[in-house]
Amino acid sequence: MDVPSGITLPTVDARIYPRGGLDILSRNEVARLRDASSGGMHELLRRCALAVLTSGSTSDDPRAARELYPDFDIQVQQQDRGVRIDLVKAPAMAFVDGELIHGVAELLAAVVRDLAYTAIELGDNCGRDLDSSDGITDAVFSLLRNARVLQPGDPNLVVCWGGHSINRDEYLYTKQVGYELGLRGIDICTGCGPGAMKGPMKGATIAHAKQRRRRMRYIGITEPGIIAAESPNPIVNHLVIMPDIEKRLEAFVRMAHGIIVFPGGVGTAEEILYLLGILLREENAGLPFPFILTGPTASAPYFEQIDQFLRLTLGEAATSRYEIVVGDPAEVARRMAKGLKRVREHRIGHRDSFFFNWSIDIPLAFQQPFVPSHEAMAALDLHHGRKPHELAADLRRAFSGIVAGNVKEDGIRRVEEFGPFEIHGDVDIMQALDALLRAFVQQHRMKIAGDYRPCYRVVT
Amino acid sequence: MDVPSGITLPTVDARIYPRGGLDILSRNEVARLRDASSGGMHELLRRCALAVLTSGSTSDDPRAARELYPDFDIQVQQQDRGVRIDLVKAPAMAFVDGELIHGVAELLAAVVRDLAYTAIELGDNCGRDLDSSDGITDAVFSLLRNARVLQPGDPNLVVCWGGHSINRDEYLYTKQVGYELGLRGIDICTGCGPGAMKGPMKGATIAHAKQRRRRMRYIGITEPGIIAAESPNPIVNHLVIMPDIEKRLEAFVRMAHGIIVFPGGVGTAEEILYLLGILLREENAGLPFPFILTGPTASAPYFEQIDQFLRLTLGEAATSRYEIVVGDPAEVARRMAKGLKRVREHRIGHRDSFFFNWSIDIPLAFQQPFVPSHEAMAALDLHHGRKPHELAADLRRAFSGIVAGNVKEDGIRRVEEFGPFEIHGDVDIMQALDALLRAFVQQHRMKIAGDYRPCYRVVT
Amino acid sequence: MDVPSGITLPTVDARIYPRGGLDILSRNEVARLRDASSGGMHELLRRCALAVLTSGSTSDDPRAARELYPDFDIQVQQQDRGVRIDLVKAPAMAFVDGELIHGVAELLAAVVRDLAYTAIELGDNCGRDLDSSDGITDAVFSLLRNARVLQPGDPNLVVCWGGHSINRDEYLYTKQVGYELGLRGIDICTGCGPGAMKGPMKGATIAHAKQRRRRMRYIGITEPGIIAAESPNPIVNHLVIMPDIEKRLEAFVRMAHGIIVFPGGVGTAEEILYLLGILLREENAGLPFPFILTGPTASAPYFEQIDQFLRLTLGEAATSRYEIVVGDPAEVARRMAKGLKRVREHRIGHRDSFFFNWSIDIPLAFQQPFVPSHEAMAALDLHHGRKPHELAADLRRAFSGIVAGNVKEDGIRRVEEFGPFEIHGDVDIMQALDALLRAFVQQHRMKIAGDYRPCYRVVT
Amino acid sequence: MDVPSGITLPTVDARIYPRGGLDILSRNEVARLRDASSGGMHELLRRCALAVLTSGSTSDDPRAARELYPDFDIQVQQQDRGVRIDLVKAPAMAFVDGELIHGVAELLAAVVRDLAYTAIELGDNCGRDLDSSDGITDAVFSLLRNARVLQPGDPNLVVCWGGHSINRDEYLYTKQVGYELGLRGIDICTGCGPGAMKGPMKGATIAHAKQRRRRMRYIGITEPGIIAAESPNPIVNHLVIMPDIEKRLEAFVRMAHGIIVFPGGVGTAEEILYLLGILLREENAGLPFPFILTGPTASAPYFEQIDQFLRLTLGEAATSRYEIVVGDPAEVARRMAKGLKRVREHRIGHRDSFFFNWSIDIPLAFQQPFVPSHEAMAALDLHHGRKPHELAADLRRAFSGIVAGNVKEDGIRRVEEFGPFEIHGDVDIMQALDALLRAFVQQHRMKIAGDYRPCYRVVT
Repeated sequence: MDVPSGITLPTVDARIYPRGGLDILSRNEVARLRDASSGGMHELLRRCALAVLTSGSTSDDPRAARELYPDFDIQVQQQDRGVRIDLVKAPAMAFVDGELIHGVAELLAAVVRDLAYTAIELGDNCGRDLDSSDGITDAVFSLLRNARVLQPGDPNLVVCWGGHSINRDEYLYTKQVGYELGLRGIDICTGCGPGAMKGPMKGATIAHAKQRRRRMRYIGITEPGIIAAESPNPIVNHLVIMPDIEKRLEAFVRMAHGIIVFPGGVGTAEEILYLLGILLREENAGLPFPFILTGPTASAPYFEQIDQFLRLTLGEAATSRYEIVVGDPAEVARRMAKGLKRVREHRIGHRDSFFFNWSIDIPLAFQQPFVPSHEAMAALDLHHGRKPHELAADLRRAFSGIVAGNVKEDGIRRVEEFGPFEIHGDVDIMQALDALLRAFVQQHRMKIAGDYRPCYRVVT
Repeated sequence: MDVPSGITLPTVDARIYPRGGLDILSRNEVARLRDASSGGMHELLRRCALAVLTSGSTSDDPRAARELYPDFDIQVQQQDRGVRIDLVKAPAMAFVDGELIHGVAELLAAVVRDLAYTAIELGDNCGRDLDSSDGITDAVFSLLRNARVLQPGDPNLVVCWGGHSINRDEYLYTKQVGYELGLRGIDICTGCGPGAMKGPMKGATIAHAKQRRRRMRYIGITEPGIIAAESPNPIVNHLVIMPDIEKRLEAFVRMAHGIIVFPGGVGTAEEILYLLGILLREENAGLPFPFILTGPTASAPYFEQIDQFLRLTLGEAATSRYEIVVGDPAEVARRMAKGLKRVREHRIGHRDSFFFNWSIDIPLAFQQPFVPSHEAMAALDLHHGRKPHELAADLRRAFSGIVAGNVKEDGIRRVEEFGPFEIHGDVDIMQALDALLRAFVQQHRMKIAGDYRPCYRVVT
Repeated sequence: MDVPSGITLPTVDARIYPRGGLDILSRNEVARLRDASSGGMHELLRRCALAVLTSGSTSDDPRAARELYPDFDIQVQQQDRGVRIDLVKAPAMAFVDGELIHGVAELLAAVVRDLAYTAIELGDNCGRDLDSSDGITDAVFSLLRNARVLQPGDPNLVVCWGGHSINRDEYLYTKQVGYELGLRGIDICTGCGPGAMKGPMKGATIAHAKQRRRRMRYIGITEPGIIAAESPNPIVNHLVIMPDIEKRLEAFVRMAHGIIVFPGGVGTAEEILYLLGILLREENAGLPFPFILTGPTASAPYFEQIDQFLRLTLGEAATSRYEIVVGDPAEVARRMAKGLKRVREHRIGHRDSFFFNWSIDIPLAFQQPFVPSHEAMAALDLHHGRKPHELAADLRRAFSGIVAGNVKEDGIRRVEEFGPFEIHGDVDIMQALDALLRAFVQQHRMKIAGDYRPCYRVVT
Repeated sequence: MDVPSGITLPTVDARIYPRGGLDILSRNEVARLRDASSGGMHELLRRCALAVLTSGSTSDDPRAARELYPDFDIQVQQQDRGVRIDLVKAPAMAFVDGELIHGVAELLAAVVRDLAYTAIELGDNCGRDLDSSDGITDAVFSLLRNARVLQPGDPNLVVCWGGHSINRDEYLYTKQVGYELGLRGIDICTGCGPGAMKGPMKGATIAHAKQRRRRMRYIGITEPGIIAAESPNPIVNHLVIMPDIEKRLEAFVRMAHGIIVFPGGVGTAEEILYLLGILLREENAGLPFPFILTGPTASAPYFEQIDQFLRLTLGEAATSRYEIVVGDPAEVARRMAKGLKRVREHRIGHRDSFFFNWSIDIPLAFQQPFVPSHEAMAALDLHHGRKPHELAADLRRAFSGIVAGNVKEDGIRRVEEFGPFEIHGDVDIMQALDALLRAFVQQHRMKIAGDYRPCYRVVT
């Protein structure tokens, strides 16, 4: 979609009467929805709706959509009968002969549904305690249930993480893994964008069709800051928009019956540490949780370095929580299928629900955002002898802060102003971390302007 | 079920894992449900559950069930996985080879679901305004939606009212009307007990089977004071327990696409006046609402007298709101089918929902109970010249009070203590009312000990 | 339906476009169907169609229908698109507002389908060998498959036999047994008329609704000589018209996963001997086949006499093939459910199909009609020492002949002309047979004009 | 799949119990099926089964499969219960963890089903007249019905023709057309191989998923000589194997509600003439039959030349039967959708079936193969003044013969032996035909060794 500047694309005006959760509302609910959508929520709604209406578009650039459809608008109208969504100057690509494509209409309804739920049910004065760990978990549960993605049924949901701009070799590999998972009746959940978020779904659709499965789920979990930059890929048939990044991560972990990590940027490394930080807690010791790192043969070094780093920092014991499989999609799927059986047996044995992992312990610290200030960075404690899960948590934060100091506008500015972060830690841990970061730069997984210079110094 | 005193019937202990609305709850919701069911709600739950577990039993006497199963108990237990219902000494008739019959399990889950919703979502501190008309309507809506009886789909729900102890001739007639309705694809909603509440459902099942319908609805709407006295008949496949009589009446009126009234006791005459009191309001003038009074040929006098009474009191105009058909089930069904078409067109034209009649105006006075004290009776104003709907409302109240004064323990006592009610009204209206009551006594539709003596005197 | 003579009932003319097996025919097939239905098959078709169109009518008398609708006619028309059925002066009771009731339309299509299949696929020159045992079985299979009643799925089809004019006590008992079978997920197959053919289906519908079963089968298997006399009861949702009585019996035995016999006329006793004659064959020794005789407590004598007779004639060993349960519907259902499990295991073990009992051996003699001439009766061999199954077969024939000699026009005439049948047999066997017949007369199960006089004499 | 010679791939032995048409067979049918499959049909069965088991393999070369799996065998076994298919040394790629992929199992059952039907029901002594036009049509109908691809339902089946080795630009275009068809609820039928047979299906799957369609049909119609060379593409979910090329063509034309032709080799041009030869018959004058030639912009010359040729030879009137759309997939779909509406109305008006075009007249000459001998070529009559449909038919034959004379071994040999074909025709017609052929050579759509030399001479 290389469009010369100043050119706009064909648009359509339309009125939609949404179904699935928005079709049986009370007058009062419709009014609150209308008010929310015309008030503070409106710009958010407009942005998310446009992302959905350009789903499947090949462009990577979120601004493109907003520039190509500058006059797009969306209004939620009240009717006795229920909700009506008015679209103005909407992308014609979402329509066939004037009719909105059914799947797009579903995604659009999902956007309205989730933003409204967040604004109304999770907003101020809703009576929920969103500062406690249980309260946050309850909110995550409520939103997912309202989105109708919590369904009884045997554990078969695998979350796939990985980069959105991986190379072709890696993309094809994610497709093959998805194909092998799909052949074994496994449904896919990802962050809903391109790259490693699309490949596994694409592979699974082919396998599901071959296996004549009827009700397959391709769940995309996103959040407002991400969806606008990454349109849901056209395979997603259940879209959920969580209120923020932390709730999105918790939704992944509580819905997943297993997680597969493909190669990705540094963000992916962070996610690995996030999950390990949870799994290594004593509270979660007995909990089966299949966790596989995998990629094509060429990506072996990526995982080797991560593996080395984890062993050095968290100790050999940490390796009991993940498996690394390189270049063997069928083996990945076989191991995951076995893991799902163990999860099923465990849930039955402990009478935990199949659709939401209540048992896994996620502490409040993981549910709250980490803001990498100099104070916060100085408070990290990267020494040997700590409990592995605590070290994992602090490593993730260190990681997050270093990335910020190198590539994020905010972080770079802070480092320029106050000097490098001071991190308290053992020398060998800090060297391993440094080596890992340099490798990412070499593998072009981390975009650095100019040479890589550490933005921190070790205080021992 | 004529059981000698002192004899108990076979019982079963069982654990039930309910589905349909109770299967995807949060830990918190399960805990609140458990607390509510073991606290103040427990005796209510026990009584309603027992009614459902003896559904289909032929006995009319609610005490029978409680006497036959004196040790019956029910506990709602919390599990990570969701809700478990423990039954102790439950009637064996609800089980097959130790397994609870599926339909009974559904009704049992409905009992827990609705009592819990009332206790938790409509209870104190729920943030709802249950003193305003809109607030009450919203509560009615919420409970019905939570019970999953509000479904999109063409208007085809006919509410049938009438006595629970009608004669065999009249019962067979209600069955025939149900059969003719069923042949035309109409679903049935009643008060869920025996007599005129069972006949139309029974007739409809035969017709639905003949027409090879798959998803038919036999909705029973009851309330805690009634269900314990009248077990849901075994045909009911959707059971709703509203919190009180007034919300039950509103649920009938807002869900109905049409209402048929069969012969019944004086209570039925009261219901006719209740509905007319609503339909004759100017706010509801343009609203189509099929309303048919019908019975076998032998019941013609019943309807003739009601008709005469309505004409005399409310004027000829009132007759535009109802039709009387005697001895012609097919004609009843044909007229109702035509009426449903008009309702459908009207809802589409006014963009009102198919599943809930938001447009019909029900004033607060109809949503609140009428307690027939001497003051309240003296405040009635039964003179010509009032607006028909106001007169209808007061007539209903007068009726209610007179019935109380004649047959209800409370009312009889009050009349004995304070003398007859004083009612302000025109003589001809009061004479008509009196004549109607005497006719009911003659037709054995009103049980009087000894001769009938009016419990009121007219003040002109 | 007591209609004064000379009165005709309202009729409807209609055009039906049938579905389900008649909707995808070739031009050629449609032409052959039209020819067959306007040729020799026409009167048969007219008679059967009328029976179906008056299904649910309360009259027992087949002539009534033909007299009440004397001008009824049916024509099968050819259209490129498929088949059209024209009905002339058809009973209005089969229609709702001019539309044929769906279920009746299905039964009507079944009539056309089966008569056409018999006329075209099993008629002369069809290339089948209808004189061999295998050929007849193949014809039975083909017709049943064409009627789409052979479906994969766990064994759950119980055939119920018994009289069509049983007393009210017995009828209610058949309903209760049907209810208990239905609670256990069992489908019912009967001869499709009233009495013991309707009761079990009626009871099962209530139980199936309670258990929320969706796809239940109420299969009626009839034949042209019977259907005209006995309209299918309105519960039947799969109707099959076999070409003759013997193929109908074979259809019952090969489709049944178990058989229950209720009290009935002498015909029922004959059926018991028919089934025992098959089950006692050595070829069928290892074959599980649940076979239960049952009735209300009051019918105990009926089964006692049959039991005694069977022990005396066939020996104690014969009793291993049947069970007698009196006055305990739940026990009947429990035993049948257990029996079905054994059938399932046996079929799996022997890789026999679930939907057609290929393994059971039915010899040619049972597939061909027995015509009770004096020669045939004299050829019977009712002596001790024969193999039980052979004796059972000859007893059945003796039975059939004696009944004919006593009550059937043809038989009575023959006996009047040629004197009593001469039957070769041991005295005790003949006495037992005689005692059984006298008991039936006493119990009003066999209609005799005047006193009962044996129509045979024993030759020893 | 570039495999060094001498290397074999992993294989699996398996036993399959097929469903869908093979699950309810009589003992006799199973025996005949077993005999046919172990007799003359065995090698055919083996070849077709292998094609299906390697479905989705990327190799184009049919011999590859046979060389890679040299020991593959298939046996159809008899069981009381039904059919068992034994696979020996079957390609492991068709299995997941030892289980045959469901979709592949369905295709395999289709192979057995259709070959058996052809061998048994259409074989010698089946009583059919396969020499008459009606008899052949009836056989085509019977086989398609037996394959369960004839279903009631609105006309929405579009047949796509075109080359199997088109260029990437053209392939992407076929995908886009399939996508636009799928968005409009249209199902796809093709010859089931790669290229223009796969592209439209692939595009349609994406659109069907987006429109949330549940029961979509991707029908592949092939014949034994073709399937072995071209494995069904993995999207095909209904496979039909017609007995020969002519019946395959008739199946396309009678099932199609419309036909789209993409660029292809000379074979495609022949197919266009085949269809025009039918559509231009007077008997088919009033019959709507949407027929669109389309390709990407770059393929415009291809269609221009065909168009010119058709105008010159068959006259301007012929152009009324087809449309040419270049470079506009959405427009193709819109026109086709409109055409389908006309087809629907016509079928209803003429009461023709939706699922089989009985009305279209296909003369015997089109149902029989044309063998291009010198005599047959000399008998062609390519002069102006003939009826267009007759000229179209002879042109198709001339075409077929010329292609044979140029590229087919048989034809080349004949021309070398007996000299060029002598064709009687007008000079301008022959020149146009010659020009068309030269253009194909230039566009690399016809493989010629060396320079193109006409293999015929015109006799005027």
